[in-house]
Amino acid sequence: MITKILIDDARFALENGAGSDAIHKDPTYSYAVTKLVDDSDIMGSGFAFTLGEGNDLVCKAAQFYANKLIGKDIEELMANFGKVFNDLSNEQQFRWLGPHKGVVHLGLASVTNACYDLWAKKRKLPLWKLLIDLSPEQILNTLDLSYLEDELSREQALQLMQSQIAGKKEREKIIETGYTGYDTSIGWFNYPDEKVRENCKKAVAEGFTAMKLKVGSTDSERDIRRANIVRETAGEKVKVMLDANQQWTLPQAIKICKQLQSINPYWIEEPTHPDDVLAHKTLANAIAPTKLALGEHVPNRIIFKNYLQAKCADFIQVDAVRVGGVSEFITVSLLCKKFGIPVVPHVGDMGQLHQHLVLFNHISLGHEALFLEHIPHLQKHFVHPAIIENGVYKTPQETGSSCDLKI
Amino acid sequence: MITKILIDDARFALENGAGSDAIHKDPTYSYAVTKLVDDSDIMGSGFAFTLGEGNDLVCKAAQFYANKLIGKDIEELMANFGKVFNDLSNEQQFRWLGPHKGVVHLGLASVTNACYDLWAKKRKLPLWKLLIDLSPEQILNTLDLSYLEDELSREQALQLMQSQIAGKKEREKIIETGYTGYDTSIGWFNYPDEKVRENCKKAVAEGFTAMKLKVGSTDSERDIRRANIVRETAGEKVKVMLDANQQWTLPQAIKICKQLQSINPYWIEEPTHPDDVLAHKTLANAIAPTKLALGEHVPNRIIFKNYLQAKCADFIQVDAVRVGGVSEFITVSLLCKKFGIPVVPHVGDMGQLHQHLVLFNHISLGHEALFLEHIPHLQKHFVHPAIIENGVYKTPQETGSSCDLKI
Repeated sequence: MITKILIDDARFALENGAGSDAIHKDPTYSYAVTKLVDDSDIMGSGFAFTLGEGNDLVCKAAQFYANKLIGKDIEELMANFGKVFNDLSNEQQFRWLGPHKGVVHLGLASVTNACYDLWAKKRKLPLWKLLIDLSPEQILNTLDLSYLEDELSREQALQLMQSQIAGKKEREKIIETGYTGYDTSIGWFNYPDEKVRENCKKAVAEGFTAMKLKVGSTDSERDIRRANIVRETAGEKVKVMLDANQQWTLPQAIKICKQLQSINPYWIEEPTHPDDVLAHKTLANAIAPTKLALGEHVPNRIIFKNYLQAKCADFIQVDAVRVGGVSEFITVSLLCKKFGIPVVPHVGDMGQLHQHLVLFNHISLGHEALFLEHIPHLQKHFVHPAIIENGVYKTPQETGSSCDLKI
Repeated sequence: MITKILIDDARFALENGAGSDAIHKDPTYSYAVTKLVDDSDIMGSGFAFTLGEGNDLVCKAAQFYANKLIGKDIEELMANFGKVFNDLSNEQQFRWLGPHKGVVHLGLASVTNACYDLWAKKRKLPLWKLLIDLSPEQILNTLDLSYLEDELSREQALQLMQSQIAGKKEREKIIETGYTGYDTSIGWFNYPDEKVRENCKKAVAEGFTAMKLKVGSTDSERDIRRANIVRETAGEKVKVMLDANQQWTLPQAIKICKQLQSINPYWIEEPTHPDDVLAHKTLANAIAPTKLALGEHVPNRIIFKNYLQAKCADFIQVDAVRVGGVSEFITVSLLCKKFGIPVVPHVGDMGQLHQHLVLFNHISLGHEALFLEHIPHLQKHFVHPAIIENGVYKTPQETGSSCDLKI
């Protein structure tokens, strides 16, 4: 039984331009942390990610939802978490502040993630192990499929998961080999050219075969110059992704993406505003076969459904610390599986939680094991920091979701 | 010069089922109020609307933005408010919490609306008078058209407004005759049938020629029965609107909207989730020629652009206390004008602010003067409550935007 709630506002300063992009020039990586303590003194820990300012608002929203869990048994909650999630996210007054987006939905993510962590710790399992051992019906019971009826009914979702059972054993081999990572930190926006070049060399030496550069400069010449540095330094075989962080208008995006095609990007990420589904469609058509990735600012399954229906996203970057937590992450992953689109999470959690979720996506949902973003800047603050060796995430063995912070 | 900021969390209990709808069964109408006091002791007052719980979060967001206006001159702010709005809404850390939606955007609405109120009070004019006397260039300088470049460039917006100058004098006649209202309060969701029937009779007797009923019952028979009561009581000539407040899934909406066609609704409002642009498109096609209205939960100009591009909204119900205030309301109204779609605001402000804005939309933008929603429940709390006679809003004569509360 959950007996105590603790909410922490945890903010971590970054140094020397780390984390900077075209829009967010000086972020403070921050977590609105929910801790759920049960009567056996086990503590589930989950969080949502912000860039600092306003993290306290998300904490307050998390407190609102968490208070409703006092006195509840975690196994009972998780046996029907889809209903719990639906009820919480539709609390009739609080819902007005979204619905299902912004501060309130981030608060819900924090609480949801704490529930999954507590669940796994109670069962003394790493979260990935708990999830892959659940039956399709048990997984479905943790999901809220409302407003997806036109694309993913409960029956369709069940069939989809059942159809993947046959290959599970084969795909479980990835537990031993580990999940490939990619390096996001070679070219933060504020880094000078020389540092980008050095970081590229280092990333290749460390075994990374994919890496990402921040673009979206006022002067597109800077973007092109830096992209060329990465391509030249990393070589032709390395996958190079370019991330504009919403900086471009649609006309700008069309023009600049075409210029950037010369370095053969693996994808171009967040080219314009994350609410603008139809602009992404226009852009995707204009720059094909260059591929688009997006999702770090998409708040819920309904907008993801629209992106998938519009067929303008080649990679979906749903983030479990942006949408309503693990539950909605899995819902979106199921939708993506139906549409045949790979899930490559944005890692506001620095990969701590998502290293579990991509294993589930691969093993249980049959998603391709592409690669998982790696950002090292907060490693010292986690009790069990993700371990990357030769560019590969080692499978976590600790119980829970690896989200305990040293605070 | 703005010297002092006051933020109020104002909540007003409703009685006997007033304000109830299919989703929000027991709302507490609430305002996150921003007051900007300048060095001549004039106070500008603006707010965002919520349903109670979490109104304090919006107040905190408003405080964050309002603090940035200390020491600023209101005329200087408003001379280039489009840039001010863009800067505030893109504050690089706070932006993560939206962007441009949810709690932070509601906070921005509150502050923006206080700026417009202070501006009009300084000039000793009702807001509608201030707005209709501005030149197209001056109006444009108050707007942020970013992320609309594919549909509404500054030049296009300018031409659009200039093309409406010729008819302004003729359209100004509405200042004398007043702007027609419609009655939203005949059939709140929790009202019993008999009360709906009585309210219908009363509305017709009071001179209303249009009225709205809440639908979205678990049992669609109840919706159909109540809709028939309204149609029978009000007669064939009255416009009857039906409002589902997002209650239906897409398959449900298609089925039930077809059943409700028998009472010849003027529009069906918020049939399903407000983020689901493509579901609205599917629905609009399925139930044509029945018309759809939406917008009270659409947070910004970019999503409205998508709805307009998808051609699935026949009436746009943008609300200046939901989007980023008067500035973004005008931006969306310009977009609607370009697409030939009428603007019929949702009135989270109880019509206080929107009675000014619809006059501007009609006189300066050439929008049809259709009608404006009327909700009477908070009249006693306003210093200058809107006056409705014979179903018509009398043009407000007090200076400012009529948003001062007796608190």
